[in-house]
Amino acid sequence: MITGQNLVGGLWESITTEACFQTMNPKTKEYLTPLFQEASTEQIEQATLRASGVSEIYAATSFEKRAHFLKIIQEEIKQNSVEILAAYQEESALPEGRAKGELQRTLDQIERFIEVLEDGSFSQATLHTNGPDLRKILVPIGPVVVFGASNFPLAFSTAGGDTISALAAGCPVIVKGHPYHAGTSELMAQAIHSALKKTGLPLELFSHLGGESHQIGSQLVRHPLIKGVGFTGSFTGGKALYDLAQKRSEPIPVFAEMGSINPIFILENKLKTDENLAADLSVSITLGTGQFCTNPGIIVICDSSNESSLVEEIKNKMATMELPPMVHSNIEARYKKQITHLSSSNSGVQVHLFNENDSALGVVSGADFIESPLLSEEVFGPFSLVVQCHSIDEMVNVAQVLKGQLTATILSTTEDQHNLKILLTKVQAKVGRILFEGVPTGVAVNQAMQHGGPFPATTDSRFTSVGSDAIYRWLRPIAFQDCPDFLLPVTLQNKNPLGILRNVNGILTTNAL
Amino acid sequence: MITGQNLVGGLWESITTEACFQTMNPKTKEYLTPLFQEASTEQIEQATLRASGVSEIYAATSFEKRAHFLKIIQEEIKQNSVEILAAYQEESALPEGRAKGELQRTLDQIERFIEVLEDGSFSQATLHTNGPDLRKILVPIGPVVVFGASNFPLAFSTAGGDTISALAAGCPVIVKGHPYHAGTSELMAQAIHSALKKTGLPLELFSHLGGESHQIGSQLVRHPLIKGVGFTGSFTGGKALYDLAQKRSEPIPVFAEMGSINPIFILENKLKTDENLAADLSVSITLGTGQFCTNPGIIVICDSSNESSLVEEIKNKMATMELPPMVHSNIEARYKKQITHLSSSNSGVQVHLFNENDSALGVVSGADFIESPLLSEEVFGPFSLVVQCHSIDEMVNVAQVLKGQLTATILSTTEDQHNLKILLTKVQAKVGRILFEGVPTGVAVNQAMQHGGPFPATTDSRFTSVGSDAIYRWLRPIAFQDCPDFLLPVTLQNKNPLGILRNVNGILTTNAL
Repeated sequence: MITGQNLVGGLWESITTEACFQTMNPKTKEYLTPLFQEASTEQIEQATLRASGVSEIYAATSFEKRAHFLKIIQEEIKQNSVEILAAYQEESALPEGRAKGELQRTLDQIERFIEVLEDGSFSQATLHTNGPDLRKILVPIGPVVVFGASNFPLAFSTAGGDTISALAAGCPVIVKGHPYHAGTSELMAQAIHSALKKTGLPLELFSHLGGESHQIGSQLVRHPLIKGVGFTGSFTGGKALYDLAQKRSEPIPVFAEMGSINPIFILENKLKTDENLAADLSVSITLGTGQFCTNPGIIVICDSSNESSLVEEIKNKMATMELPPMVHSNIEARYKKQITHLSSSNSGVQVHLFNENDSALGVVSGADFIESPLLSEEVFGPFSLVVQCHSIDEMVNVAQVLKGQLTATILSTTEDQHNLKILLTKVQAKVGRILFEGVPTGVAVNQAMQHGGPFPATTDSRFTSVGSDAIYRWLRPIAFQDCPDFLLPVTLQNKNPLGILRNVNGILTTNAL
Repeated sequence: MITGQNLVGGLWESITTEACFQTMNPKTKEYLTPLFQEASTEQIEQATLRASGVSEIYAATSFEKRAHFLKIIQEEIKQNSVEILAAYQEESALPEGRAKGELQRTLDQIERFIEVLEDGSFSQATLHTNGPDLRKILVPIGPVVVFGASNFPLAFSTAGGDTISALAAGCPVIVKGHPYHAGTSELMAQAIHSALKKTGLPLELFSHLGGESHQIGSQLVRHPLIKGVGFTGSFTGGKALYDLAQKRSEPIPVFAEMGSINPIFILENKLKTDENLAADLSVSITLGTGQFCTNPGIIVICDSSNESSLVEEIKNKMATMELPPMVHSNIEARYKKQITHLSSSNSGVQVHLFNENDSALGVVSGADFIESPLLSEEVFGPFSLVVQCHSIDEMVNVAQVLKGQLTATILSTTEDQHNLKILLTKVQAKVGRILFEGVPTGVAVNQAMQHGGPFPATTDSRFTSVGSDAIYRWLRPIAFQDCPDFLLPVTLQNKNPLGILRNVNGILTTNAL
């Protein structure tokens, strides 16, 4: 049951004197019950103190215990899935299929980190016994704050990838829930809290705080006991948190994924020969009503003779699509403002707005795009900008003016590919993932995924927020020199009691020393 | 031959209109020839533009080519070692043994990165071929700036660990040489420049700029084409560079190693029974005239009955040692000022100054230490502060007030070790390396080393600046999805042409796909 309370270091607290807020169904625009409480200054302080108080205990728990904890979280979520899915659909107005899909994705993500803990090699045990006996292992950095994302009420929110990777790493987590889906978030927090109870872990290691005020996030990020931050959202929000964290007397890492325009480059032969382009692109542009961080914001085509009908075909497709509403009226309002602004700008862009579903398509020449830096700003919603180039060299120049991105896609035929080297080199310097088929929407959750990219796509291109390597955001190495065996972490002891893969004097082995 | 010129993106430039500076022999206080030129604004701009211009070419060079380049650097250094050692000793006044030792260490460090490149598995190739074909690899971040350290004219300077790890990673490097040993630095830059010529790599990828003005470093760090920074030095210097880098419109990683007081905890039985403590500690305190980042700045002893004669024994040893001068009169002046300040403070510290060699030992009670945060500031020089505790609980409280450190050392007997858990847990949260025998001075260069630690010891505890893992500071992951085999980096191609160890669908293997 959704109560509207905050979970403060293991205690559900109701403080009726604090300000309240409500969620809203984005389709009906009706406010939902119950009222949610803004987390108070005192609650933030308590949540942080309690997380820090159990930080060392939790860091010392076995991988097995943590894996068991994650399994119970999965079970708790499954047991309460009917209520979770109902709240999700009320608060987001997203269709049942998306709700179920995202729930399954969330459970699958948890499964990946269970596997990571069961395998154990993520801890990167490195032993060097010639000379001084040196043994290095990754340890958790301490309590972290995770911000729920507006556009993924489950997969990038309370029990999403940031939280689960941090819990797997051995860090206590304080979630600042996103106010657009406060009920869904609370139900997920209940699942984590129940799992803590059932596994006998300290309840203090997980908190869930709600609120609309930026003050809550700011107080959390500035708190001296917080050691790291995970965020998925806008550039403005992510950069503000990053700056706060860097101005602390002890700066801390902030992993902010701040959006991307995910350019798609379509080469000349591909453009001429692939009859499915318009269908594939229009689906990708409008997927989730355009509210994916991997949404293709620009489509750069090589059309030397101005013969392509791709723009007209995409227009025809987009005009007739049925789209669910955007996840919140604030996001919708911002989207519409950006489209109006683009339409009236003198940057050479023609904007086609489809009144049936509020999606839109822009068209601009390569030359105009290169001249207008503002055209590479993200428009968050069901919109894309087609950039018409006349040569691959012009495409290279377009790639050159782009900022850091999560992804880029290069669509080509075998014939096109012999001319691709320069474009590929340029694009590679700007992104975290390059696709050569399909569309960037859709992010597989496995160890080979890189969901990140050079600034401003993220604040730290060296890490990923999707896939099992996301755990490395919350770990740091420590070396033990000439340490008595029984005082070593179990991962570094001579007998290798966990049987994990270790680097022993340069050789990877599961053997005892 | 030392010319006093700057190496600007491959060209040795002499601009006689610019300001000049000189190095000084710290023993004789005599200025040395020749005059060195301050790098000009235009030279900094050119060095950066040229580095950026060849960044993509260098990133695409094979590991084999880079390993060969490093080998030729080693050869060039060896061939010119007589002149290098002479300049080193003139500019630092450090003894021949130290000069030769540091040169050998510098060559050994280069050897580690040759091994890393020959092995190739550092690139962390990860292939996942179920579902979309995803292949992830680490790629260089781009041009980086390295600041030479005052206290290691070779091992942490022009061809030191920062530069060599970045060159191994595939990043162009601009070195801002330290003005205290500008001649030694120039000779090392000549070695790197010659190696570039001999291997046919672009000369633009390495620059060496000299100067005394902070403006040079500031202009380099703020330049939009610079993508990372390596620094070893003071907290003031490192933090200033870090702040500059975070205020850029595109923030970049700064790996600043900013010093540490490297606490040594000596437990009760150890204190009573180890007769070598005073000898070992006095040597460690005065090694390199105290100018090591791993110098033991505080020695916390458990002496419940106030019976220990350790302080008197260390005093006797220190009073009679012969120490070379500090590496520069500025450092010496700052050291003396700090000692004077400590002596006259009302923090309960007794300071014993040994006039024979300017070394000093302080003594303070655990209670007073805990009350005076200023006592945990680093005193850079041949000084240590003995903190007298009466119980292991009091030692835990001392550990609790310490900031982040590079190392801590816990000296104990088997009997002491059964009581160590709480102290060990506290200490572990504060450091990058814990020693259980010996002294923290002496840092082995291998893969199990962690030379780093929580802030303020460094600006990023997740990385090391010593040992082969130092290469990870200059790399970021990129994933290729459904990429045609011939367009993939060679490390990710089906046939695994380099035969490197790769993670293929969760299995580590050198096999082809």
